[in-house]
Amino acid sequence: MKIKLVSINPTIGYLKHNFEKIIENIKISEKENIDLIIFPELSLIGYPPLDLLDKKSFIDEVISYNQKIAEYSGKVGVLFGSVTRIEDQIGTNIFNSAIFCFEGKIKSIHRKSLLPNYDVFDEVRYFEPSREIQLLEFKGKKFGVTICEDAWNDKDFWVHRKYDFDPVEEVVKLGAEIIINMSASPFSIGKEKIRTEMFSQIAHKHKKPTLFVNQIGANTDLIFDGGAKVFDRNGNLILASNRFEESSVLFDIDKIYNPITYDFPEDIVDVYNALILGIKDYCQKTGFKKVILGLSGGIDSALVTVLAKEALGSENVFCVMMPSQYSTEGSIKDSKKLIEKLGVKSTIIPINTLFDEFKKVLKNEFKDLQEDVTEENLQSRIRGVLLMALSNKFGYLLLATGNKSELATGYATLYGDMCGGLAPISDVYKTKVYELARFINRNDEIIPEEIIKKVPSAELRPNQTDQDTLPPYDVLDKILYYYIEEAKEVDEIVEYGFDKNLVEKILKMVDRAEYKRKQAAPGLKITNKAFGTGRRFPIVQRWR
Amino acid sequence: MKIKLVSINPTIGYLKHNFEKIIENIKISEKENIDLIIFPELSLIGYPPLDLLDKKSFIDEVISYNQKIAEYSGKVGVLFGSVTRIEDQIGTNIFNSAIFCFEGKIKSIHRKSLLPNYDVFDEVRYFEPSREIQLLEFKGKKFGVTICEDAWNDKDFWVHRKYDFDPVEEVVKLGAEIIINMSASPFSIGKEKIRTEMFSQIAHKHKKPTLFVNQIGANTDLIFDGGAKVFDRNGNLILASNRFEESSVLFDIDKIYNPITYDFPEDIVDVYNALILGIKDYCQKTGFKKVILGLSGGIDSALVTVLAKEALGSENVFCVMMPSQYSTEGSIKDSKKLIEKLGVKSTIIPINTLFDEFKKVLKNEFKDLQEDVTEENLQSRIRGVLLMALSNKFGYLLLATGNKSELATGYATLYGDMCGGLAPISDVYKTKVYELARFINRNDEIIPEEIIKKVPSAELRPNQTDQDTLPPYDVLDKILYYYIEEAKEVDEIVEYGFDKNLVEKILKMVDRAEYKRKQAAPGLKITNKAFGTGRRFPIVQRWR
Repeated sequence: MKIKLVSINPTIGYLKHNFEKIIENIKISEKENIDLIIFPELSLIGYPPLDLLDKKSFIDEVISYNQKIAEYSGKVGVLFGSVTRIEDQIGTNIFNSAIFCFEGKIKSIHRKSLLPNYDVFDEVRYFEPSREIQLLEFKGKKFGVTICEDAWNDKDFWVHRKYDFDPVEEVVKLGAEIIINMSASPFSIGKEKIRTEMFSQIAHKHKKPTLFVNQIGANTDLIFDGGAKVFDRNGNLILASNRFEESSVLFDIDKIYNPITYDFPEDIVDVYNALILGIKDYCQKTGFKKVILGLSGGIDSALVTVLAKEALGSENVFCVMMPSQYSTEGSIKDSKKLIEKLGVKSTIIPINTLFDEFKKVLKNEFKDLQEDVTEENLQSRIRGVLLMALSNKFGYLLLATGNKSELATGYATLYGDMCGGLAPISDVYKTKVYELARFINRNDEIIPEEIIKKVPSAELRPNQTDQDTLPPYDVLDKILYYYIEEAKEVDEIVEYGFDKNLVEKILKMVDRAEYKRKQAAPGLKITNKAFGTGRRFPIVQRWR
Repeated sequence: MKIKLVSINPTIGYLKHNFEKIIENIKISEKENIDLIIFPELSLIGYPPLDLLDKKSFIDEVISYNQKIAEYSGKVGVLFGSVTRIEDQIGTNIFNSAIFCFEGKIKSIHRKSLLPNYDVFDEVRYFEPSREIQLLEFKGKKFGVTICEDAWNDKDFWVHRKYDFDPVEEVVKLGAEIIINMSASPFSIGKEKIRTEMFSQIAHKHKKPTLFVNQIGANTDLIFDGGAKVFDRNGNLILASNRFEESSVLFDIDKIYNPITYDFPEDIVDVYNALILGIKDYCQKTGFKKVILGLSGGIDSALVTVLAKEALGSENVFCVMMPSQYSTEGSIKDSKKLIEKLGVKSTIIPINTLFDEFKKVLKNEFKDLQEDVTEENLQSRIRGVLLMALSNKFGYLLLATGNKSELATGYATLYGDMCGGLAPISDVYKTKVYELARFINRNDEIIPEEIIKKVPSAELRPNQTDQDTLPPYDVLDKILYYYIEEAKEVDEIVEYGFDKNLVEKILKMVDRAEYKRKQAAPGLKITNKAFGTGRRFPIVQRWR
C-alpha cells in the first residue's frame, strides 16, 4: 500500500483555492497509483480560522466542500483536515476533524480529542472535543488517526500533562497498526527537534509506524514550517520532506526502509527561513506585491531589508532614509551601501524641516519646558507619517522594523517606528538580530560590517545610545527570555546571577509597555512565547 | 440570619488593595452584626486577570491572601471570590473559586463548574472546571454556591445551551435552601434585563431565595455594572442595590419582604453610566489624572468631551482644536461654545503649515500624482502626532474619539484619529452617539445643537461628508448590527430589506478593516459584540 503525505499551504477561509490545491494533489496521486493521500489538519480551511468558525454560512460552505472532495476521491483514499458538525442543542457542535473518503464517499470521520487552548491556541472556543475514537480501516489495514495536539500528551514524554486522555494510546488499544498525525503545528525555535523526538518515541513505544504531516505556510503571525515524516516501528526516521515549502513523502507500507540521517537544522537557519516565509505569505495572501520600510542605518532595518528582499525580490522593496539633525553621517553612507548591495529601491527624505515646523507649532504649548522624550518621539512619528503617506499613495505594505527586546521594554515609539502592517522581527531578540546578520554575511558581506559593528542607537538626540536606557543586550535578552518565555519571576531570575534591581527594573518596563504592544503591528512568531495573541495581559492591572 | 451582599470594585492584580477593601467591609459587617458577607467572583483579584494566572508567584500570593482573609473572618462568615489550587500532574490545576471562611479558618471551597470561553471570556485557558459540588453549610442553613456562568445554563431559560451540566440544578438536588451567585458579569446593553429575569426564573423554578452579587468597576475594555439583588422563592425581586457604584444589600433570611418594583433603566442611561465609569476607572487604575483629546467640531469628539468631563471633572479635560484649510468656520465656533459650556481647558493649533510642509517634503515622491486619501490621512496623522506630543509632554492620557460605525467600516485613520490610550466610544454606533447627545441635552443644551445638526464630515477635503463614502448612518448601523452582533450573513441581512450590493459592500469594508482594528486602542465594551478581545478574526484570510 502506497501512502502519500502532502504538506500544503492553504489560505485561511479561501475554500475554493484550498479545495483546488487538494484536488490537484489527488489527481497527481491517481497517476502515481497512490492508495492513500493524507493532508494536514484543517487543510481545507487554513489555521487558525478563529471566529470564522462562528459563522454558520462558513461552516455550511466548508461542509459542502467536504462533500465535493469526497466526490473526487475515486480510487485513491483521501484523508484531509476540515470541520464537521453534529446538530445538537448543547455546545458549539463543530469538530476539528480528519475526513476519510474513498470511491466518492465519506467513509469515516475522525474528530480531534485534545483541543489546545493555551498560548496562541483557542480551540475550545470553537470546537467540541471528541471522546469517541474509531479506527480508519482501509484495504485491510487499521490506521489510528490523530490530529495534532492528540499526540502531544504521552505520559512517558511529558512530565506535566495537559489532559487526562491519550488518543494515541486509545487508537493503539483499538488495534491500530499504523499511527497517523495530521498537524497544523506552528514553528518556534527548537520545536522541530521536540516534534521529531516525540513522534519517534511514540512510534518506538507503541511499536507502530508513525506518519506525520504538517501544514506549511504563514498566516499573519503564525508560521507553519510544514514537512512530512515517517518513523518506523522502532522509532527510526525513515522519510522526511523539506520544510518551509510545499512538499510530500511517499511511503510504501510493504517496503523496507533504512533509517535516514536527519541533521536538525541550526536554529538560525530555521529562523531565517521562517521569517522569509512569514513575509512572503503575508504579502501573497493579502495581495501586496511591494513593501516599504524606513532604513535608519541600524542593524534592525538592515536585517528586515534583507529578509524582505529574499521574500519578495529586490524590485519589490522600497527603502526610505529619513535623516534628522541627530543622524550620523555613517547612517546614510552605510544604508546606501546596503541598498546598492541588495539592489533595492530607495529614496532620501530628510525630516529636519518637519521637525522644526512641529516644534514651532508647539512652541506656545511647550514654552519654558525642556526637550525630553516628547521630541524624540516626534521624530519617530514624523518618519511614521511619511512612511504611511508613501504606503497609502503607492499601495506598498509598510514593514515595522522593531525587534523583540525593544517591544518588550517599550523602547519603541507608538505611531512612530511601530507603524506598519507587519513587524517581521518583533519576536527576534536583539542578540538574535546580530546572529541573523552574521548568518546572512556567512559567505559574503551582504549587511555592511559598519552596520553590524555600530553602537546601537535610536539617533533621536545627540550622542544617544540604546545603553543609556537599557543594559547591554546580552544581559537584557537573557532576563527577557527568562521572564517572557520561561515565565520566571524576579527572585528566580536573580538566581541565574543577575542584579536584583536590574531585574526588577526590566520586568517593570516589560509590564508597563503592555499598552504599546496592544496597538503593535502583528509580528511573526518564532519563539515559544511571542507578544501578540499568545501572551495576554490586562493593560489596567497593578500586579508586581 | 443576616446576609450582606457587597459589590466591590477591585483592581486587577492589586491584591493588597483588593484585600484591604474586603477586610474593611468585613469589619463594617461585624459592627452590623451580619452573619454572612458575600463578595463577587474573583473579588480578591479583579476580572479578568488573564495570563497573570499563569504566574506561579501570582497564584502563590493569591493563596496567601486567601488565608489572610480567612484569619479576618472571626464571627462573620465570609464568602469571597478568588483562585484555589490543587497540585496535580494534569491540566492547569487552578480553579475559579468561592471561598467560605468562618472563625479564622477556610471552611469550604466552592469551585466554578462552567467556564465561559466565548466572546471576551477565556476561562478554559486558565482554570480547570469542577464537577464536584458541595453545599455551604452555615448556622443550620444550606447554601448552594454558584459562580457567574454556573447559573447561565438553565435548560428552561435557554434554547441553546453551552454545557450539558447545570450546577444550579445540582446544588438544589443536594438540598440547597438558598442559591447564591457570585459574578463578574460585564455590562452590555440589555444584559441587566436578561440577568434579572434569569435569576428571577431560577428562584421561581427551584422555589429558593436567590442571591446575586456582581463585581463593579471597569478594567480596560470591560465594564462591570455591579449591583446586588435578592429574589424570593417566588422569583420576586425583593432587594436591589445601585449599579455603577460600590453598593450592598442586607438580607435577613428570617424577615418577610414585599416584592419591590424595579424599573429597568433605559438603555441610554445605562450606556451613559457605563462609559463614564469606563473612563473614570481606566484613569484611576492606571494613575492618569488628566485626559487630552482632539475636538473637531463634530459630534463624536463633543460626546467624548462631555463623558470625560463627567468622569474626571472639567479641570482634567484638555481639548485641542486643530483646524486645517478644510475645516469649516462653524467647527471652531461650535467647539468653543462646547468648551465654554463645560469649562474644560483648550487650545488651538492650526495644522496648515505642517500639512504644507509634509506635501513639500513629499513633492518629489508624489510628483504627477493626484491628491487622494493619502493627503486626507496625512491631516489626520498630523493631528495624531500633535496630540501625542502634548500627551507625552504633559502626561495626559489621549482619548481616541472614533465611534463603532467608523471602526467597523475602516472609516478611520490608523495612527491618525485612531491614536489614543483608550477609545471610549469605539463600541457606540453613530446613531447611538446621536442618542447619547440628545440624552445629555435632555434638560439643558450641553452639546451645541449646531454640532448635533451638522452633516457628519471628516473635513479632510473640500465639501466632504461621511455619506460620500458610507450610506446614511441609520441604514449603515442596522446592517452593521446584524453582521457584527447578530452574526448574520449577506443573504440574511438582505431579507431585512436592504439592498444586496450595499450589504455586500459594507460587509467587505468591515472584513477589510480588520488590520486597522488590530492596532486600535482598547475601547469600552457596551454591546454584546465589541471589536477587540471578544471578536477575533484573522487578518490574513480570504473568506467572503
